[in-house]
Amino acid sequence: MACTTNAFALSLSSTPNPNLPSDFNPKLTKPLTVSLRGSGTADLNLGRLALSRHTQLTRRICANATQVTMDQSVAAPTIVEVDLGNRSYPIYIGSGLLDQHQLLQKHVHGKKVLVVTNTTIAPLYLDKVVDALTRGNPNVSVENVILPDGEKYKNMETLMKVFDKAIESRLDRRCTFVALGGGVIGDMCGFAAAAFLRGVNFIQIPTTVMAQVDSSVGGKTGINHPLGKNLIGAFYQPQCVLVDTNTLDTLPDRELASGLAEVIKYGLIRDAEFFEWQEKNMEKLMARDPDALAYAIKRSCENKAEVVSLDEKESGLRATLNLGHTFGHAIETGFGYGGWLHGEAVAAGTVMAVDMSYRLGWIDSSIVKRVNDILLRAKLPTTPPETMTVEMFKSVMAVDKKVADGLLRLILLKGPLGNCVFTGEYDRKALDDTLAAFCKS
Amino acid sequence: MACTTNAFALSLSSTPNPNLPSDFNPKLTKPLTVSLRGSGTADLNLGRLALSRHTQLTRRICANATQVTMDQSVAAPTIVEVDLGNRSYPIYIGSGLLDQHQLLQKHVHGKKVLVVTNTTIAPLYLDKVVDALTRGNPNVSVENVILPDGEKYKNMETLMKVFDKAIESRLDRRCTFVALGGGVIGDMCGFAAAAFLRGVNFIQIPTTVMAQVDSSVGGKTGINHPLGKNLIGAFYQPQCVLVDTNTLDTLPDRELASGLAEVIKYGLIRDAEFFEWQEKNMEKLMARDPDALAYAIKRSCENKAEVVSLDEKESGLRATLNLGHTFGHAIETGFGYGGWLHGEAVAAGTVMAVDMSYRLGWIDSSIVKRVNDILLRAKLPTTPPETMTVEMFKSVMAVDKKVADGLLRLILLKGPLGNCVFTGEYDRKALDDTLAAFCKS
Repeated sequence: MACTTNAFALSLSSTPNPNLPSDFNPKLTKPLTVSLRGSGTADLNLGRLALSRHTQLTRRICANATQVTMDQSVAAPTIVEVDLGNRSYPIYIGSGLLDQHQLLQKHVHGKKVLVVTNTTIAPLYLDKVVDALTRGNPNVSVENVILPDGEKYKNMETLMKVFDKAIESRLDRRCTFVALGGGVIGDMCGFAAAAFLRGVNFIQIPTTVMAQVDSSVGGKTGINHPLGKNLIGAFYQPQCVLVDTNTLDTLPDRELASGLAEVIKYGLIRDAEFFEWQEKNMEKLMARDPDALAYAIKRSCENKAEVVSLDEKESGLRATLNLGHTFGHAIETGFGYGGWLHGEAVAAGTVMAVDMSYRLGWIDSSIVKRVNDILLRAKLPTTPPETMTVEMFKSVMAVDKKVADGLLRLILLKGPLGNCVFTGEYDRKALDDTLAAFCKS
Repeated sequence: MACTTNAFALSLSSTPNPNLPSDFNPKLTKPLTVSLRGSGTADLNLGRLALSRHTQLTRRICANATQVTMDQSVAAPTIVEVDLGNRSYPIYIGSGLLDQHQLLQKHVHGKKVLVVTNTTIAPLYLDKVVDALTRGNPNVSVENVILPDGEKYKNMETLMKVFDKAIESRLDRRCTFVALGGGVIGDMCGFAAAAFLRGVNFIQIPTTVMAQVDSSVGGKTGINHPLGKNLIGAFYQPQCVLVDTNTLDTLPDRELASGLAEVIKYGLIRDAEFFEWQEKNMEKLMARDPDALAYAIKRSCENKAEVVSLDEKESGLRATLNLGHTFGHAIETGFGYGGWLHGEAVAAGTVMAVDMSYRLGWIDSSIVKRVNDILLRAKLPTTPPETMTVEMFKSVMAVDKKVADGLLRLILLKGPLGNCVFTGEYDRKALDDTLAAFCKS
């Protein structure tokens, strides 16, 4: 397949081109032309991008190029609106959105921006984001703070580094924080924005499937405590979520799979049709087919946005988004933060929740099988780590946020595919049996 | 003067009487009668209350007794409503309110309560508050965390002790936090409540004039950062504020004066009549005349509630409550947290703001004189500590929350008594001249 591309190809460079004027805007220029043929290599400046996924890069470029050829301009993003009254905001989804500077800039408040990112993402996308924030916008100054990467750093000590940097940089209430990274960065930056000077604006730029389909949307922010996940935080909504699907090109396979655990969740709890689509398209998702990924992200965001709009503060419905998470958080906490990725723990937790639902007689065995099958195809674990004991599960689950007046409430499937309940009314024996079945001791 | 009292006298005991049934409720019993004559001593169980203010205690008892004699029951509290839509709440003000258990209990959510207090207040009032929470209410269990006392402990490290205790006690989202103490406790407990599990209910029981007239009302919560006061926090409203004026009996004189700095502030920024009343009654306030104190607290809360209702998140009007605070925070931060009490720093800061207002030609010299006079009568400082330099003021003021896009906005008096402005539009020379006038270097 042959295709032509234009200035979009510049998006592959993570550093601004010094030969271009500072107010250069690809949207306004005459297209450059780069020819790519078949699966051959292309002489593009790939900057600091990882080259290991060359084939996918090429595929994506062609997809962009097709769009461009059709539109004769940059592609308009898909927009999913999160409807929360005066706290409503858009989720922009698309390829190359970080090259559409005005998209980001129109959501920046004040003259100072603090980009919060980590040691993995900074070399890949920090320059690009700074460029997107400042190009043609010389009044804005951008600071950054680069945190260590990983769930085990999602704690108060790391959070304080964000406050230190913000205060040293003399940021004021009119500044904007930008979360550039996965779920850990989004949660920490969001909580820092919620608490800095009692609240400043922030923007989410998620760079993992996990963050793009779930954690960046809906305003749940926070940090972990040694005794439990996300126990300290705030409900605090961003100004916008900007999902540039190109950032997934550098995502490791294991992280990709982790994110798919949340995609599968939406199907199970409320969107049977989406689950069936996933059953047909899992190999495409795993192979990073851009159209399949874009659809999965969009449909996930639509599901999330709808739930969040109906129940922002999780008085009921929103809790259903935590299918598998109570078991999963126990795995993450008990096994040590960062031992497993969040989505891996959620996958095993989902199998446990589904097992328990079946023991209660609430679902058919066919659903149990389908859940196991799809998770295995996504290369996700379907049992907890062998070191997890019944006691470890019970002690962490006792401090879960869904405990109310001492009663642990769980999200369990009930009825046909796509239906679930959030309830504390279940036979305790089913929970004990599930824990016993999945733990060696 | 002779007076009789009834079960109210029990409020002087900080421990429950073991001879009374656990569901004993003073409101429902036949009054006990204790006779007090003149200023003589009374044989009451004063428990762990400080005895040094014997005369004032006696006076308060008589005031209560008068009310009781008139009502033939416990006195109804004065109620000031903070009108914030679905986040509205009452401020109860009165003598002996901690003996009216139902008043507190009706605002407790869930079955678990965490009382956050400090090493000074716990021996005086913790048992009393636990009794008020649990009497006739056996389903509620109460945990407590006792923090070190003082502004220098209002930091992330101390805050973590609250989270640790809450999580170890397996508190869930339906729990209630109770702040029992002065402004530091209220600010920290409030922020902990805002962030624990992304938000749980909390109640303010302020025990200092500072907290009763200002910090407990309006939902500003937070902690200090080494580089500036209250830089990390949340706007988070309590379920109610319960001001039992009896708790002031144990307040040191210096703390009493500190609180009066905020009382004076309300007069200066928006209530000239109240300022004039203070000019007539400052000696009564300093002598802890209960009627004068009760009036000052009520009028202050009315002013605060009105401002907060109009501008909860401090987009403009609410900032005027910070008269003297920008200079004051610089003193607190520069001189070291806890070196001066908050109100002492605000008093000196108010003199500086008034001086600057006069230099700008915005007020008459008569106001300058009246502010100095009333602060001196309240035994409050009218100049900053000698060690404060111009540079120290400037560096701390640069990170003040009222800086916007690099411009420091100040609250300054302008026009007749009771009028002020919140503005960044002032001659910088006036600020420089004020700093030079109040600093040796």
